[in-house]
Amino acid sequence: MLERTIIQQRGFRNVVGNGAVTGFQLRLRNPNYRGIAASLVDGVEIVIDGEKHAPEQSRWTLQGRTFTLDALRASTDVRWQLDEDAVVTVDHPGGLGAGVHRIEVAIHLRRPYIPEIAGPSVFRATATGTIVPATGGTQGLNYGVSLYSYSGDLYTSMSLEDSMADIADLGATGIEILGEGNIPGYPRPDAGWIDTWHRLLDRYGLTATNYGAWVDTAMWRERDLTAEEGRAQLETDLRLAKALGFTSIRPKFGVVSPDLEPHPIWQPAVERVLDLAADLDIVICPEIHSPTPIKHPVTQGYLDFIERTGSDHFKLLIDTGIFQTAPVDDGHEGFEGKKRPAFLEPLAVPMADLVEVLPQVHFIQAKFFEIDDELHDLHIPWADLVTTLHDAGWNGWLSSEYEGRREPYWGRDQVRRQHALLRGLRA
Amino acid sequence: MLERTIIQQRGFRNVVGNGAVTGFQLRLRNPNYRGIAASLVDGVEIVIDGEKHAPEQSRWTLQGRTFTLDALRASTDVRWQLDEDAVVTVDHPGGLGAGVHRIEVAIHLRRPYIPEIAGPSVFRATATGTIVPATGGTQGLNYGVSLYSYSGDLYTSMSLEDSMADIADLGATGIEILGEGNIPGYPRPDAGWIDTWHRLLDRYGLTATNYGAWVDTAMWRERDLTAEEGRAQLETDLRLAKALGFTSIRPKFGVVSPDLEPHPIWQPAVERVLDLAADLDIVICPEIHSPTPIKHPVTQGYLDFIERTGSDHFKLLIDTGIFQTAPVDDGHEGFEGKKRPAFLEPLAVPMADLVEVLPQVHFIQAKFFEIDDELHDLHIPWADLVTTLHDAGWNGWLSSEYEGRREPYWGRDQVRRQHALLRGLRA
Repeated sequence: MLERTIIQQRGFRNVVGNGAVTGFQLRLRNPNYRGIAASLVDGVEIVIDGEKHAPEQSRWTLQGRTFTLDALRASTDVRWQLDEDAVVTVDHPGGLGAGVHRIEVAIHLRRPYIPEIAGPSVFRATATGTIVPATGGTQGLNYGVSLYSYSGDLYTSMSLEDSMADIADLGATGIEILGEGNIPGYPRPDAGWIDTWHRLLDRYGLTATNYGAWVDTAMWRERDLTAEEGRAQLETDLRLAKALGFTSIRPKFGVVSPDLEPHPIWQPAVERVLDLAADLDIVICPEIHSPTPIKHPVTQGYLDFIERTGSDHFKLLIDTGIFQTAPVDDGHEGFEGKKRPAFLEPLAVPMADLVEVLPQVHFIQAKFFEIDDELHDLHIPWADLVTTLHDAGWNGWLSSEYEGRREPYWGRDQVRRQHALLRGLRA
Repeated sequence: MLERTIIQQRGFRNVVGNGAVTGFQLRLRNPNYRGIAASLVDGVEIVIDGEKHAPEQSRWTLQGRTFTLDALRASTDVRWQLDEDAVVTVDHPGGLGAGVHRIEVAIHLRRPYIPEIAGPSVFRATATGTIVPATGGTQGLNYGVSLYSYSGDLYTSMSLEDSMADIADLGATGIEILGEGNIPGYPRPDAGWIDTWHRLLDRYGLTATNYGAWVDTAMWRERDLTAEEGRAQLETDLRLAKALGFTSIRPKFGVVSPDLEPHPIWQPAVERVLDLAADLDIVICPEIHSPTPIKHPVTQGYLDFIERTGSDHFKLLIDTGIFQTAPVDDGHEGFEGKKRPAFLEPLAVPMADLVEVLPQVHFIQAKFFEIDDELHDLHIPWADLVTTLHDAGWNGWLSSEYEGRREPYWGRDQVRRQHALLRGLRA
């Protein structure tokens, strides 16, 4: 699917030639209601942050071929289809700075079937777009994105392939999924879908990272899940995760207390699949999630389990919401209480607590809620966190988990902003 | 693709059992960020126009199987996936009246991983939805929809198949397309796509009606298209239309005057393909479009052409914008002039003029701009038009062409409203 706006978020980037940044690129959707012969395109004026770029500065890439404006006007066998984008490349030595830019376009088309008296056909659009640096970031860290970030957009305005294209476009290499969310036909996807999944990973250069699973202990109203039923659920997800190339799963057990104490079946259920996890080489990661901090009996329970079982296939997953320094008040549907849910209060776990458990941390969900136009995160202290991880020599995945406002396309842009922010940090 | 809103427009309908209307149905998207076992669904309260329907009145259809709420809660092998809808059927003898209704839902889910203290998980949504009568309409008229109605939505939030599902859902049986808009890879779609097209027509019980084509006489800036180039364009579209099962094409030639006088190549170009059109049994239909009325040299030129050539494969297509009784001031992008374009002024062609040419009219594009919550069209006199067509014994297609505001999903609902309106007219 193309994005609804004429100016597409995906594909806004600097371009490099002969080792230097020579300009930038924009993807545009055809603004007319019909596809047209490319000779009917009369150019585009582009204004970035108030700076004008004349139509003659742009080259157009349509259907895999690139044209100057004059060549486009003279073309005979290329089209701008409704279901295909145009990539416009603008000469601009040095390119655009990392971060959020205001983009204005005026696309000129010729429409021979409209009388001249109606005036020229000019389609105007404005948007903000985020340039993610092509390089940068912190040595040792790997950057990924969870499909949770695209909740609401996925299956309504973006396909699985769109999500993968978005992730690759912002320079991330890891993809995290929700098993019971992003696998059609879960828990028994057909073989064709599994083949497609691997083909898409390959096409977009992505690594399958973490697979979110659930053990719904309150699956039925009249009784809880048994430990054996919990084990069976874990086995299902472990095997499915393996088939899809994931290297960890995060099982979310039902909880029995406000501070996320997991249902008591968790230990026997997990213990019964530790050998399987070792055989499949998949790490089982309970999630440390606000309002539960690191120094807490729940986290300690997981650490004790590691020590007792001696397993190296059970480790912690940290959700960075625990480092939140300011409250969050929007973006969460389904909560009926009048008060803000506890997990949206600032828990502000000290970095020193993280350092203590980092040897047992396998994966980090880079939870965030809002990053503003100046690339400031309003809630999560990324510079502190990245410095802490770097100084401790931690090597693992930072997997974007956007959890703010669920307006259409908002999460897609916010994830771009987060990666622009993270790539710009020098730990 | 599912619609973004939790309450889907498509699928809102009355249901019939044993010859009587027993209730109504709603399609819902899973409001959570993950797919769930259906046993975690705790029911839905539905309020229609202020009237409450308790959760126990609903049956749920998920993955092709239908459950009472109690059976759903006890289920073990059925899911509400993120990429699949739930169909909720509500017992309500007599059903809902044709037209626009206000719908409120409160969907209760159990989320075992969220502490009880956070309160129950209730997802609320409101929408308006349109019930299209399953029967009615005017004897002899056939009802279709042009994909032009879905401009902006198609390829951003709906696939071709979604558009066909929408059309079938509102009880229409004809589909009109824009060749240079809705055919991937135009003018050379691959054979697989053509097979898919026919398979989808069959699945949704649709007939391919009219194919919109263009002859862009100003294809290049320095010279006009020759008559031979115009002929070649027409041949391309005639053959493609035939391959896809269409029975008419509407070529839109470039114009040379404010009142839509077509470029002079039109006659020689069309004349050279009349035999081909007869061989393929496709009717070529120039469009009578505002600001050009029926009593006008342009229309007369087409009628003269019919008489001179004696062809029965060249007839008129009427765009109902010519009957517009009030001005239209929104929904049209790409016009830079300060003044309202002439074709959006009310032309108010008398029905008597239509009667005179009806024997030469092959197809009617049921152009409209806005239908309000009471099913009143603000611009087009449908009752007069349908009575006129009926009294003249005209048998042909009325093909919805929505041309109002291009907000997401707006056109989809407006087309439903138009069909509810048209089906309710008794000519």
